Amino acid sequence: MSAGNYIQLVEVGARDGLQNEPNAAALSAVDKVEYITALAKAGLTRIEAGSFVHPKVTAMANTGEVAEKLKAVHQAFPDVIFSYLVPNVKGLERAKAVGAKEIAIFLALSEKFSRANINQGVDESFQNIVPVIKDALAAGIRVRGYISNLFGYDDFPFSPDDVAKRSKQLLETGCFEVSLGDTTGIGDPEKTRAVIAALNAHHVPLAHVAMHFHDTFGNAIANVDMSYELGIRTFDAATGGLGGCPYANSPKGNLAMENLVRWCQGRALRCDVADVAQLTRAGEAILKKLGKQAA
Amino acid sequence: MSAGNYIQLVEVGARDGLQNEPNAAALSAVDKVEYITALAKAGLTRIEAGSFVHPKVTAMANTGEVAEKLKAVHQAFPDVIFSYLVPNVKGLERAKAVGAKEIAIFLALSEKFSRANINQGVDESFQNIVPVIKDALAAGIRVRGYISNLFGYDDFPFSPDDVAKRSKQLLETGCFEVSLGDTTGIGDPEKTRAVIAALNAHHVPLAHVAMHFHDTFGNAIANVDMSYELGIRTFDAATGGLGGCPYANSPKGNLAMENLVRWCQGRALRCDVADVAQLTRAGEAILKKLGKQAA
Repeated sequence: MSAGNYIQLVEVGARDGLQNEPNAAALSAVDKVEYITALAKAGLTRIEAGSFVHPKVTAMANTGEVAEKLKAVHQAFPDVIFSYLVPNVKGLERAKAVGAKEIAIFLALSEKFSRANINQGVDESFQNIVPVIKDALAAGIRVRGYISNLFGYDDFPFSPDDVAKRSKQLLETGCFEVSLGDTTGIGDPEKTRAVIAALNAHHVPLAHVAMHFHDTFGNAIANVDMSYELGIRTFDAATGGLGGCPYANSPKGNLAMENLVRWCQGRALRCDVADVAQLTRAGEAILKKLGKQAA
Repeated sequence: MSAGNYIQLVEVGARDGLQNEPNAAALSAVDKVEYITALAKAGLTRIEAGSFVHPKVTAMANTGEVAEKLKAVHQAFPDVIFSYLVPNVKGLERAKAVGAKEIAIFLALSEKFSRANINQGVDESFQNIVPVIKDALAAGIRVRGYISNLFGYDDFPFSPDDVAKRSKQLLETGCFEVSLGDTTGIGDPEKTRAVIAALNAHHVPLAHVAMHFHDTFGNAIANVDMSYELGIRTFDAATGGLGGCPYANSPKGNLAMENLVRWCQGRALRCDVADVAQLTRAGEAILKKLGKQAA
């Protein structure tokens, strides 16, 4: 496998991370922009900055304000792309209004999860997202596609073939990349191997696939390692490991970007962050604002 | 590699874990015995119960009282072996006095760490521990040898050869097992591979080697996975992931036993714990006593 030694880091702390932090609704747009600016200063170039979802998701309600403030940050860091999660046409309109250059859309594989999350079945959800993708592309906005619960969910047993088929479908619909998300952190290296084998079997180009692991049960780095061995070069992570799960002894949510960068260093792989200490400080600052202190 | 599919779990929460928890000195012997009893109930059969170190290590000052109370627990769980860390002859006498069947001794590879920890150089420390090992064996007590900072420490760069040589020396001196400890959690799968290659090159029998990983930077399970692939079958871990490091966004210390058991389940490997939920409750209870709540 020769896919190069540059790892593309996608920062999801300000979106996937904060959306799952109980205290995130108390953060002001200024708080979030400070966090995001620190991430850009640390060298990250792909940063999810928020979600244009229904304002009932209080942690994301100020995304519009965040996006407006990030215009100035973008002047200082022109190479950084800020991305916004968008569930529907209405969300896309809000993303357009703030001049977004990238949006992310999502698709569940589980009927139950999909209905609980957006009150639509999987196929219906896919049909509804197609015009959003097309509209975004027509407006010059690139689109990332998320697949959630990659390794299965309750009613939906792990099916590498389904993951591969849906990934292909999203790419063919115009997504430049699919991010396969282990939402609950149940993945392990063998399951990761099975998914990537299915992607290869379905001729899904791995250069357009990102892996998004959660460290709930300690498997995130092991899964990254396996993915890398099999040719994946793009990984999502959240500085500060934001998005913790509710178990007392499993405090980790998203793979911490700090640990992903350390993994790159240990493997002598190139990435956009040179100084992990700077990233660590950014993580500590947001954790402090969330009331999550050192143990 | 055919080393069987039974994984030996060595629980170190009540010793290595608590010794590195700032609030552990406040735990009574009863608190600790409740934790240890819950671990035995969950099926664990090798449990480090404390240290007979200088009482200035306040977290371990009540180890004698813990050991006395564990005699009754041993009646209920006769297959469980409780082990005690012992730094010198004086500690061994205390272990003998409570009828210990297993002790653990430790050896640093770094002069600096060794002097900071026990005010002895590495060779001097080894010479001083030899009579402790011999005395213990003469008294029918088996001896486990710890090597700390396996992957290097400050003044001491990572040297797989030195790890292998010292491991062999400890086994030849009478230790039934050496546990190689990644005290600061800096290891990764490639370094793990290098150590095991050196053990093989020096003809150290892997059946007598345990790996002891900390999850400080998220690598513990990845390292376990690599160790398993290369033939290691014994792993240390701490229920509740006790022994956290001081960084706000790296709250994990020892690999959590819960995650090690889940790893066994994911790999379809046998181990002594059937019900990870029971173990999780034991971890949550001790974390609560330490004032470490769910994030």
